[in-house]
Amino acid sequence: MTRKQLVAQIFDKQTFLCVGLDTDIKKIPTHLLTAEDPVFEFNKRIVDATAPYCVAYKPNLAFYESLGVKGLVAFERTIAYLKQQCPKHLIIADAKRGDIGNTSTMYARTFFEEYNLDALTVAPYMGEDSVKPFLAYEGKWVVLLALTSNQGSHDFQLTEDAQGERLFEKVLRKSQAWGDEDNMMYVVGATQGRMFEDIRRVVPSHFLLVPGVGAQGGSLQEVCRYGMTSQCGLLVNSSRGIIYAGNGEDFAEMAGQKARELQQQMAAELSKIQG
Amino acid sequence: MTRKQLVAQIFDKQTFLCVGLDTDIKKIPTHLLTAEDPVFEFNKRIVDATAPYCVAYKPNLAFYESLGVKGLVAFERTIAYLKQQCPKHLIIADAKRGDIGNTSTMYARTFFEEYNLDALTVAPYMGEDSVKPFLAYEGKWVVLLALTSNQGSHDFQLTEDAQGERLFEKVLRKSQAWGDEDNMMYVVGATQGRMFEDIRRVVPSHFLLVPGVGAQGGSLQEVCRYGMTSQCGLLVNSSRGIIYAGNGEDFAEMAGQKARELQQQMAAELSKIQG
Repeated sequence: MTRKQLVAQIFDKQTFLCVGLDTDIKKIPTHLLTAEDPVFEFNKRIVDATAPYCVAYKPNLAFYESLGVKGLVAFERTIAYLKQQCPKHLIIADAKRGDIGNTSTMYARTFFEEYNLDALTVAPYMGEDSVKPFLAYEGKWVVLLALTSNQGSHDFQLTEDAQGERLFEKVLRKSQAWGDEDNMMYVVGATQGRMFEDIRRVVPSHFLLVPGVGAQGGSLQEVCRYGMTSQCGLLVNSSRGIIYAGNGEDFAEMAGQKARELQQQMAAELSKIQG
Repeated sequence: MTRKQLVAQIFDKQTFLCVGLDTDIKKIPTHLLTAEDPVFEFNKRIVDATAPYCVAYKPNLAFYESLGVKGLVAFERTIAYLKQQCPKHLIIADAKRGDIGNTSTMYARTFFEEYNLDALTVAPYMGEDSVKPFLAYEGKWVVLLALTSNQGSHDFQLTEDAQGERLFEKVLRKSQAWGDEDNMMYVVGATQGRMFEDIRRVVPSHFLLVPGVGAQGGSLQEVCRYGMTSQCGLLVNSSRGIIYAGNGEDFAEMAGQKARELQQQMAAELSKIQG
């Protein structure tokens, strides 16, 4: 999916919501556990209920890998279902991969060829040759970790070098030489508040993928105030806050409602940049 | 596996070799392609031929994931085979995972419960809460990326902060508060040469997992000269240099020979610390 198509979707649907499919078999409604593939069944119903209110889905691989082969089958079924039912939604594999060039090439083959997904989250610690293999695919996106939503983001990401540049700023600056705003996004946690101003100084127009609204406590309004561009420039993710909104027979309806609430808040934010 | 058991294995077998099972279906001998599970068949024969000369095996997940469900089945079979045939070898999953606490917990469950492996490589960029869930398992190891073997290691890992501490040194220093030498190792590339002196200043006795000998050009002698401790303190990995040593019917024999050569060089290095 191109940047232009993504922006068009956002303004058409009046939403920049990404729904995180972090499906933990220990947390899904018990009545689904008798299904042949409970994780896929859960995802299918979540997708059906939330698709009108979001532009992207982000399954986190950790949740599927934890079930071994069965989990991978559920992941593959989910992808196939998304591709069939939601061909205009961006599908982001949240896998935070990154390895030496030779190995990153294998990961790129997995996510961009085997699964034919649109985007993949990548960790920057190993530098240029660990990221570049993912950028060799036309129409695909690298979503590079910059300033994450967790407490541990303070351990290394905020370290200033001798010139006063923080590590996350160096990641933003250097990586602009590897890709551009048509094939790179950055992960910036919603919990980072005013730091979005600093982010926008380095990457004024790249899309940011923003986790941490909801369960992790980030504020949508603050993210938009400091991070939104004239083209929106944001994909705001909610996982647990949406998919576990309910736990009964009506779990999907509750998830849809929660997604719709966020969509409405997002529409209000979008109205501010549409004049 | 405890540190004490690992050290005993190293001195008993006179080797600190780790064999990297980075099995690429595009590179294995063509006569294996008719097997029901060519990747597993290849691994099985490599393991049989190299087990006497190494103390650890390190499958890199990227190579298995690239084949989807079939790849994961080959991975699981390889693990089961190793556990049965090589119960005294350390099994390291090279996956370079790391995510927010909640998600790292899922990855830990996968590798340390589901697969019951001994060790996992973890990326440090997201800080303490992304690493700690892996340290909650008795008898398991986190192998944290510190100074990697690739060119991209220069992009961020060598950045000095205002006090002159480089990022990889900060990772080494801070992470010592999260675990200790009985449950943490560090990845340091063999290509880093004299930098092992700097590493040893911060972590004088932790085990280091050292990739990059062989295909990537690192020198075993240099690694030992600057990185070896009185307890050895090194696991030196070779992947491509061993497993693709031959490409014909005798590929496993060639791999065994190559592993044996490295074992003999390692025995010579060990003799220097045994006085």
